[in-house]
Amino acid sequence: MDELTKNIKSMTEDDLLRLDRQLGFALYVSSKEIIRTYKPFLEPLGLTYTGYITMLALLEQDNVTVKSLGERLTLDSGTLTPLLKRLEAQSYITRRRSAEDERTVLISLTDEGRALRADALKIPSQVFGVNEIDPRRVELLIDFLHRLSNHLIEHNPA
Amino acid sequence: MDELTKNIKSMTEDDLLRLDRQLGFALYVSSKEIIRTYKPFLEPLGLTYTGYITMLALLEQDNVTVKSLGERLTLDSGTLTPLLKRLEAQSYITRRRSAEDERTVLISLTDEGRALRADALKIPSQVFGVNEIDPRRVELLIDFLHRLSNHLIEHNPA
Repeated sequence: MDELTKNIKSMTEDDLLRLDRQLGFALYVSSKEIIRTYKPFLEPLGLTYTGYITMLALLEQDNVTVKSLGERLTLDSGTLTPLLKRLEAQSYITRRRSAEDERTVLISLTDEGRALRADALKIPSQVFGVNEIDPRRVELLIDFLHRLSNHLIEHNPA
Repeated sequence: MDELTKNIKSMTEDDLLRLDRQLGFALYVSSKEIIRTYKPFLEPLGLTYTGYITMLALLEQDNVTVKSLGERLTLDSGTLTPLLKRLEAQSYITRRRSAEDERTVLISLTDEGRALRADALKIPSQVFGVNEIDPRRVELLIDFLHRLSNHLIEHNPA
């Protein structure tokens, strides 16, 4: 019996089923708490957490198709479209049909959208500072989570 | 300058804003991947991941009010009510108004719901086995996530 199988078998029935021992549940709860923590800092910018994440993706790469933005953020178009409409209404982005292909919608930052970078920069350190979170520990957690996601993606290709 | 402030200040602007360095985003992506990983094992039981989590909560504590179940799962009634209606239609639970207080709805497992425990027990080890996930490492991650959530809840009381 290999190490992995042994470790799996060593778990008691109660451990396996306890709500507090479910990884998906723990991820869900922490994700919710992180979003709540960012909220007061994002509100002055009129952004939800998903809106903030979308703006960060656009600050990294501008003039992208809705499709590639959705892939980058792993958001489906049902979630992304209303979000982009809102960011457009806030004058952070423009949405326009590609000249080459009418079916393709291109997203670009406005000057106001690009200017958001300066405000966005203050947010992580405000969140870390107020909540006494050590960014070094967060780095380790983020690395672990990315390794986990990549591992699962390799084992369960879409 | 204390250690925490020093660590926050040591982060470069690019690190602070990179999409891949956002904890909320990393949590969201891993949570999505975990749910996808469970999906093929939950489908034969007719359960979504949230339905599975709800059943685990009820297997831990039966005959609870919708309110306390929602608190346990950190789900609002808009998410919980349709989920409970579905579990009732699948004969896993019953929903009935409390005799003492008409406004209170009590959730109880049916015999079929209680029998689900045996099937539910197989799922975590199937998921771990097929995906070559070491449960010991998952334990560490879960502990870290719960500590993070509790830390954030202490700093941001509702």
